Amino acid sequence: MDVVSENRCFGGVQTVYRHRSATCGVDMTFAVYLPPEAENGPVPVLWYLSGLTCTHENAMTKGGFQEHAAEYGVALVFPDTSPRGEGVANDEAYDLGQGAGFYVNATQAPWKPHFRMYDYVVNELRQDLPKVQPFSGAHGITGHSMGGHGALTIALRNPGLFHSVSAFAPIANPTQSDWGRKQFSAYLGDDEAVWADYDATILLGERGWKGDILIDQGTSDQFIDLLRPQALAEAMASRRQPGVVRLQEGYDHSYFFVSTFAGDHVRWHAERLYNLGRD
Amino acid sequence: MDVVSENRCFGGVQTVYRHRSATCGVDMTFAVYLPPEAENGPVPVLWYLSGLTCTHENAMTKGGFQEHAAEYGVALVFPDTSPRGEGVANDEAYDLGQGAGFYVNATQAPWKPHFRMYDYVVNELRQDLPKVQPFSGAHGITGHSMGGHGALTIALRNPGLFHSVSAFAPIANPTQSDWGRKQFSAYLGDDEAVWADYDATILLGERGWKGDILIDQGTSDQFIDLLRPQALAEAMASRRQPGVVRLQEGYDHSYFFVSTFAGDHVRWHAERLYNLGRD
Repeated sequence: MDVVSENRCFGGVQTVYRHRSATCGVDMTFAVYLPPEAENGPVPVLWYLSGLTCTHENAMTKGGFQEHAAEYGVALVFPDTSPRGEGVANDEAYDLGQGAGFYVNATQAPWKPHFRMYDYVVNELRQDLPKVQPFSGAHGITGHSMGGHGALTIALRNPGLFHSVSAFAPIANPTQSDWGRKQFSAYLGDDEAVWADYDATILLGERGWKGDILIDQGTSDQFIDLLRPQALAEAMASRRQPGVVRLQEGYDHSYFFVSTFAGDHVRWHAERLYNLGRD
Repeated sequence: MDVVSENRCFGGVQTVYRHRSATCGVDMTFAVYLPPEAENGPVPVLWYLSGLTCTHENAMTKGGFQEHAAEYGVALVFPDTSPRGEGVANDEAYDLGQGAGFYVNATQAPWKPHFRMYDYVVNELRQDLPKVQPFSGAHGITGHSMGGHGALTIALRNPGLFHSVSAFAPIANPTQSDWGRKQFSAYLGDDEAVWADYDATILLGERGWKGDILIDQGTSDQFIDLLRPQALAEAMASRRQPGVVRLQEGYDHSYFFVSTFAGDHVRWHAERLYNLGRD
């Protein structure tokens, strides 16, 4: 595991790593923030999955999460959004291929060999994290837009591995959206029954979540029709799923929205992940 | 004055403007953050001057200042670092020409027609700000690297216009540094006596500052030899100038450093600018 960069930040350390991913068959880049608290022993981990076109870097530089992670004693992990590089399939559209992995395991050509972001996050990177630093074993997961979709679907399918979940303006119901149908068709093929494993609204309705869920969504989000927060809100209420869906007046889809509520999400996860540790 | 973009952020509004600058002879872009407090009446303004290669955007997206400005009820102004565009002189080096205005009024060809960032900030943009919003009249100024140099020199020369000053890793003594001598020679000519008006260490030694000064400097700053914080620290101590020079262990020159201490600087200015209003 190679260190690409290392910067002191809010008393802790923001590091970017590159490692060989057997799952994706290429070198992958990710970032980890360690709060000062990590010097005293293992801390919980909060995963942040990014949205379309992003790399590990966007939230690391623009999300403002480190300040809150330092305050609440939580580590942050920022994975990339897809495999990249020569020999990796791509598409000229911004919402398919590199930068748009959608946190699925592709089963269709030409995506199948490398586009396995679901397994990469859930298994490979999670299992590799102790090489960076010993963590407490308590994992929370959040994300923005496509990454909010990833966070919700990964948590809902893996309640034994992830212990708290939230999302910023998630793609909440991709099987019914042009941010989902196009990509699932390409990555997973035409059998829509298979798509259901990657739709947060369907998964929540079927399985529920063991804890409570925090969703933030701006009312002036320019992509809100593609995100379909109403589908997830309806599913949560129908299921009697504990949680909070906050419609934040006037906020759009940008990192100005994400950074505004970053502190609330870090605190939300820290409270749940530290309580877990005390059980 | 045209609105380029507008985003809700921490309960306030982050706006980017474009206006015609008579001083620079081109259209200039700048950003203003209004905290929620601005809805209730005029608030103080904190100027943030950026460093080499930056535009209005870098600190706006990576500095993390808005959270603190919202908390303390201060507006933020982020000017560009130089005139830009066709017909504006430039240089292939990153540290001369566009993106590297050094907050001086150039007197030499080919820079003289457009490179007047000192007058642009001190006079034109400051006088145009009420077109954005009525402000309280209390102005603080800070900045990073080349922008820290700009903040210190502009405040020291204009104690009637600016009421509080701080800096992040400023170019503290440019007349004795390769970040300064090259540029001053190009913009101002070979008469080094003229340069003294743009050297914070010299100005501080000669004039002092009416209030106290806050300087943050990372000990692992990769450019520290060019910044010469020791010259400014010596001048402050020799002059018995009230203030704080903080050497922050392990921090480098990046926005990870700036964002870590952004809250301290916003609070520092807010305390002084609001006290001023109460006199």
